[in-house]
Amino acid sequence: MAEPLFRRLALIGLGLIGSSIARAARARGGIAGEIVACDRNRAVRERVAELGIADRVEADPARAVAGADGVILCVPVGAFADVAATIAPALAEGAIVSDVGSTKQSVLRDVAPLLPPHVHFVPAHPLAGTEHSGPDAGFAELFEGRWSLITPPSGTDRNAIEKVAELWARLGSMVEIMEPGHHDRVLAIVSHLPHLIAFTICGTADDLADETRQQVLKFSASGFRDFTRIAASDPEMWRDVFLNNREALLEMLARFTEDAQAMARAVRWGDAGYIEDKIRRGRVIRRSLIELKQA
Amino acid sequence: MAEPLFRRLALIGLGLIGSSIARAARARGGIAGEIVACDRNRAVRERVAELGIADRVEADPARAVAGADGVILCVPVGAFADVAATIAPALAEGAIVSDVGSTKQSVLRDVAPLLPPHVHFVPAHPLAGTEHSGPDAGFAELFEGRWSLITPPSGTDRNAIEKVAELWARLGSMVEIMEPGHHDRVLAIVSHLPHLIAFTICGTADDLADETRQQVLKFSASGFRDFTRIAASDPEMWRDVFLNNREALLEMLARFTEDAQAMARAVRWGDAGYIEDKIRRGRVIRRSLIELKQA
Repeated sequence: MAEPLFRRLALIGLGLIGSSIARAARARGGIAGEIVACDRNRAVRERVAELGIADRVEADPARAVAGADGVILCVPVGAFADVAATIAPALAEGAIVSDVGSTKQSVLRDVAPLLPPHVHFVPAHPLAGTEHSGPDAGFAELFEGRWSLITPPSGTDRNAIEKVAELWARLGSMVEIMEPGHHDRVLAIVSHLPHLIAFTICGTADDLADETRQQVLKFSASGFRDFTRIAASDPEMWRDVFLNNREALLEMLARFTEDAQAMARAVRWGDAGYIEDKIRRGRVIRRSLIELKQA
Repeated sequence: MAEPLFRRLALIGLGLIGSSIARAARARGGIAGEIVACDRNRAVRERVAELGIADRVEADPARAVAGADGVILCVPVGAFADVAATIAPALAEGAIVSDVGSTKQSVLRDVAPLLPPHVHFVPAHPLAGTEHSGPDAGFAELFEGRWSLITPPSGTDRNAIEKVAELWARLGSMVEIMEPGHHDRVLAIVSHLPHLIAFTICGTADDLADETRQQVLKFSASGFRDFTRIAASDPEMWRDVFLNNREALLEMLARFTEDAQAMARAVRWGDAGYIEDKIRRGRVIRRSLIELKQA
């Protein structure tokens, strides 16, 4: 590959995702001629410098994006408006601004109005992550074989969309274009609601009487443990996701709660047929996943 | 080991757990001089004979337990009363009757009154399993390093309790004695509620509009997939568990629902501090599990 996709790529936020992009760009090549890493946290900046995963480390987002033809916001979505306001005056003519946020309508709402007309805004969301966070948690293979969803607002420049799609393809992802509102509904059920449930049940268990709580930990292998794994994820990131996909998340939670109450009623009144039918539907879904090789 | 723990061990029900006991008894030795396998399902009996994991295969539970000094019920807990009534007249003097059911108060309620006074009833529950079922799903290592809980009613013969504890130790388990009501509360939160939630969210997803449902499957890796794994478990077994641990399960579900509603309210009103606090508690629990090496 003669020419990298971006001459200078600025990453704002070097946590799990940002540091994985930096590592993957290095490992795979053809992505960035120069990588500028920016984080407001001094300890993160020092660690990134030690790890040697960027060509330059900056504290100031405006300095980081100056002269960059690619900028990716990798901070929690609640910080997007502040970062966008800070970088807007420094963005180069024709630069592509993208992000990795888990909520896409909020990103359009918070970022698009602040950007100058001479840049292209192409939001994206790699469906990849682990329950670990911080620059040491990242790894070059994080995006391989995972989906990345691109959610451009209508009227976005085709070349800019294609460049962001190509970026994620070169990082190892499968790419799909999706309407931002649809993205938020799909993610509410596949990701945001499962995380809300996992966080909640950990709290429910933690509120139990002392003796029982100890035994919850001891005997967690019976199902509870699977919930705690996804409950270990980054608190600031998830707080922002919940607050920024409010409508879709509350709708999915309301649907789930209705269904759980219907199940509770069947348990209370001994409606074996209803319970068995619901369980069988879960199995069908699991089998579909296995056929789709997603399991 | 000169003498096996049981001269003749009868297993009633050869699904995942029953067939794993048979395999482990063979593989480890010192457990049973003779293994009699009984299943009401002809296809299961034929498969067990083909697998060669029992010395004798019987269709009639009364014939299977005749002359056995150990009997383990490995059918769904809803079938326990029927099986107990069938085997009671055929049980040998001094035989130990145990089980592997996931609900222990119901087992005491359903089985104890039907057994003759000349046998010992020592209920047990190995906290082991997979999402697969049937005689082909079993394997000899299933119980290794997993807890098995023994829940004898008060007044149970000490030697009989020790023999059942020794059985599970020889099958590879760690063993703990627990009061049946306490068992049911602990299992309600660590196992039964997580399964009910997993089955329910699969149904909630399945009810979504066609296009979204397809994408739920496609993008399931973002959290939903972890729920579908535990939702793949045996429908009859779980139907019976829910119906036979009704009180504790409904109480834990009510607590969870209150907590989920409080989270919903915090999301609706933008209470970032509340949300972050709940997420942090989930992480603390996860960390405790890792320290306890349960994760």
